Amino acid sequence: MQGTMLYGPRDIRLEDRPEPKITKPTDAILRLSATCICGSDLWSYRGIQSIAQPTPMGHEYCGIVEEVGKEVNNIKPGQFVVGSFATSDNTCVICRDGYQSSCVQREFMSTAQAPFLRVPSADGTLVATNDLPPKGFLPSLLATSDVLGTGWFAADAANVKPGKTVLVVGDGAVGLLGVLSAKQMGAERIIVMSRHPSRQKLARKFGATDIVTERGDEGVARIKELTKGIGADSVLECVGTQESMMQAIQSTRPGGYLSYVGVPHGVELNGEQLFFAHVHLHGGPAPVRRYLPELIQLVLNEKINPGKVFDLTLPIDQVAEGYRAMDERRAIKTLLRP
Amino acid sequence: MQGTMLYGPRDIRLEDRPEPKITKPTDAILRLSATCICGSDLWSYRGIQSIAQPTPMGHEYCGIVEEVGKEVNNIKPGQFVVGSFATSDNTCVICRDGYQSSCVQREFMSTAQAPFLRVPSADGTLVATNDLPPKGFLPSLLATSDVLGTGWFAADAANVKPGKTVLVVGDGAVGLLGVLSAKQMGAERIIVMSRHPSRQKLARKFGATDIVTERGDEGVARIKELTKGIGADSVLECVGTQESMMQAIQSTRPGGYLSYVGVPHGVELNGEQLFFAHVHLHGGPAPVRRYLPELIQLVLNEKINPGKVFDLTLPIDQVAEGYRAMDERRAIKTLLRP
Repeated sequence: MQGTMLYGPRDIRLEDRPEPKITKPTDAILRLSATCICGSDLWSYRGIQSIAQPTPMGHEYCGIVEEVGKEVNNIKPGQFVVGSFATSDNTCVICRDGYQSSCVQREFMSTAQAPFLRVPSADGTLVATNDLPPKGFLPSLLATSDVLGTGWFAADAANVKPGKTVLVVGDGAVGLLGVLSAKQMGAERIIVMSRHPSRQKLARKFGATDIVTERGDEGVARIKELTKGIGADSVLECVGTQESMMQAIQSTRPGGYLSYVGVPHGVELNGEQLFFAHVHLHGGPAPVRRYLPELIQLVLNEKINPGKVFDLTLPIDQVAEGYRAMDERRAIKTLLRP
Repeated sequence: MQGTMLYGPRDIRLEDRPEPKITKPTDAILRLSATCICGSDLWSYRGIQSIAQPTPMGHEYCGIVEEVGKEVNNIKPGQFVVGSFATSDNTCVICRDGYQSSCVQREFMSTAQAPFLRVPSADGTLVATNDLPPKGFLPSLLATSDVLGTGWFAADAANVKPGKTVLVVGDGAVGLLGVLSAKQMGAERIIVMSRHPSRQKLARKFGATDIVTERGDEGVARIKELTKGIGADSVLECVGTQESMMQAIQSTRPGGYLSYVGVPHGVELNGEQLFFAHVHLHGGPAPVRRYLPELIQLVLNEKINPGKVFDLTLPIDQVAEGYRAMDERRAIKTLLRP
């Protein structure tokens, strides 16, 4: 099969790769219906995060089960499934507490930009739908696999509740779906920091009430102006840089909640500053598996349409163009048809 | 009157100071019944935190109201009161949310190691008892002013609940009262990191079930051993150094809760490490005022005896010896009689 490999900064190639096989009795093999490129893939694509060798790419996926290992009991060939970017047994004490992305058996998926995919711990990682979903649902179902699950965790970890004032730092696909999630959770006011008209438009469609274009100290001052001088109740940090994290901390009210859901790159938090900010801080790899059943249901019931973040769809043989479009901000997020 | 001043590293002097007067109509003047030395006073006493000029000391206090300003309505002369180390109006939106130590009118108390004290925002800062308490209650009532309130916040911010496994990092007075607080909140297992026999003994009296003497990586390994390999549900960081904070983060289970209640000194948190630790982090100056009514009641009903942390009592003219004894770890905490 043809799978996606990163060879170095901005060097994405589709090349012959061995078709995945069952290697453990708890594995499943999927024929993917859709996969995509993640904002986090751009860290290594841009060379900000270095790679030691040519590396397969992709961790968001949904598709049809082709084959399962002998110890897979719940997932059956022929089912349509969505899985998380982090595998989980969904039975260990950490999973039972809802932190499946830190499961004792966790593996991070990394070969999903391809037509076939091996998924470890299939019973605990994958969620099947009752029926094969109509094709029109594929983008939104694919979104639940990571980008929506991550935005949802961001809102949940930032304690978004009915009536609250929420700030979303970052207008990438995760930030935009953080807006959608905050809206679903009943936030009254949703402020987004964004400078891109097309993203602002989608943010408003998802429920944003205010757009702030200023950054840094000016951005913080503007947020304070909008929140009676004290800051937002819930702040979702969806970028992962030092600047965005500082902006987020300074924009959170004392006693408020700040979540961060992208792997931080070069972020150092000063203990004393955090202490006097008086915020609740929670983040990490989103435990998407916790939310998958609910999110899939919301999609199938047409309550939400997170697939709107895919503003570019390409056949997988144009994967390199998919990366370029996101790198150059011509696309918010690229869906790939395997 | 004679008030305590710090002139430089290990140079504490009692010297003539003007008696405090009402300067704002919301002030009260107290004749202190008891005051004490805080672990946090040792940062500047030891020169780790530098001072620009001779500085008055003390922020823990209880006593009798001598006089109140014209706009003080709830607090009356003759009442016995306890107040927080941070003043608060107790009416602003941040106070109403329970974060009085970040009140928009907050001032940090700093002249309490003296016989008389001016307390700003008296109505919102002080809590009066119905009657004058018997003298035997003074140490425990004094403790509610900061050290118990801070230990209580540490346990609350670390989400201590019935049945949980709690780790307390630090065996100073705050850590010891973190143990007492966790016990009151129903923790099943309370592990304390301590190397000092007298502190271990008090920790056990307050409810500790396990003592760990190892530190650093060995300490973390020992905590993991005691918690089925995953870490504690709730971790109270009661020291404020880089080493203790790292130990605390690494000892918290994924999805668990970590609180930190001492001003961090030289602490830098790596964003990526914190991300993958997957913990909830909350801390800051303890909103003691939120808890004062409940804590005072627990003391007066003899449910708790936090005053046991005072293992040295001196008249205030021996304040310098009080600092020395704590600096040299001959005393856990020194109570001063004004």
